[in-house]
Amino acid sequence: MRVLGIDPGLTRCGVGVIDGTVGRPPTLVAVGVVRTDPALDVASRLMEIAVGLDEWFDAYAPEAVAIERVFAQHNLGSVIDTAQASGVAALLGARRGLPVTYHTPSEVKAAVTGSGSADKAQVGIMVARILRLSAPPRPADATDALALAVCHAWRGGHTNRYAAVAAQARRKR
Amino acid sequence: MRVLGIDPGLTRCGVGVIDGTVGRPPTLVAVGVVRTDPALDVASRLMEIAVGLDEWFDAYAPEAVAIERVFAQHNLGSVIDTAQASGVAALLGARRGLPVTYHTPSEVKAAVTGSGSADKAQVGIMVARILRLSAPPRPADATDALALAVCHAWRGGHTNRYAAVAAQARRKR
Repeated sequence: MRVLGIDPGLTRCGVGVIDGTVGRPPTLVAVGVVRTDPALDVASRLMEIAVGLDEWFDAYAPEAVAIERVFAQHNLGSVIDTAQASGVAALLGARRGLPVTYHTPSEVKAAVTGSGSADKAQVGIMVARILRLSAPPRPADATDALALAVCHAWRGGHTNRYAAVAAQARRKR
Repeated sequence: MRVLGIDPGLTRCGVGVIDGTVGRPPTLVAVGVVRTDPALDVASRLMEIAVGLDEWFDAYAPEAVAIERVFAQHNLGSVIDTAQASGVAALLGARRGLPVTYHTPSEVKAAVTGSGSADKAQVGIMVARILRLSAPPRPADATDALALAVCHAWRGGHTNRYAAVAAQARRKR
């Protein structure tokens, strides 16, 4: 399964593509960031994100998209813009008919380090080890995107909390 | 100036189109809501919003888009999804080359009622009066979208806080 991991942000989105499956060592395909011009207004920057991410979708043809779930309790100042970027990323995946799954930061940390409370450095070291890289990719958003993709592949793409809630709602009708 | 006001939300987005200009009574063009299926996952619902809003853009060809600015301190549970919907709305406007402006709820209330702390009922009454309607459109999201559009037209589309910040950043370079 080829997975595109996206760590959303208005200033930059981390992007990482891996090939992986449950219980097997994944392979790095590509990693980088999509940056936006801070001199532009928010809507224009969201468009830059869409244009930039579309290039990644076109170039690497992922079969699944994993996005970091944004929480309101962190970084109150920027969380709304991060969530807007997340909405754009999810829309692009859905428009291509791909499954889009949100993973929480602690799910991702637990998947790659074994601990849901691991710090950034530990995540970076483990991402590099898992993907057989000499060092964690820079900036940290790029490493986080790879960690998301690894988490998604190892969980077999099954942990879609939103999908689970939706299925539950359907059963209740 | 034809303005499309959008009150973003994952369950439903209020949409309102008016023709208006500074200091003149605006005219109602259309009002309604774009609803999503709560049984679907978030990414699919964001796509429903994009498809639904695109129909409004196509049908009414607005020259400007006014979106309610989402704040992190309100409704912590749903604010992230509302912000994701807001990101999708802003992206659609930017992709069409339209100016996209965020207005705060208090800016909107002040514009239509004269008070930034007016309640929903007061906003509804004033929107109906301003647009010469027999009653505020239902649901409240639809009325809020019209209030946004009126606010934008009366302010001449000049209050883009983000654009102002961006311009300031450019001057500082």
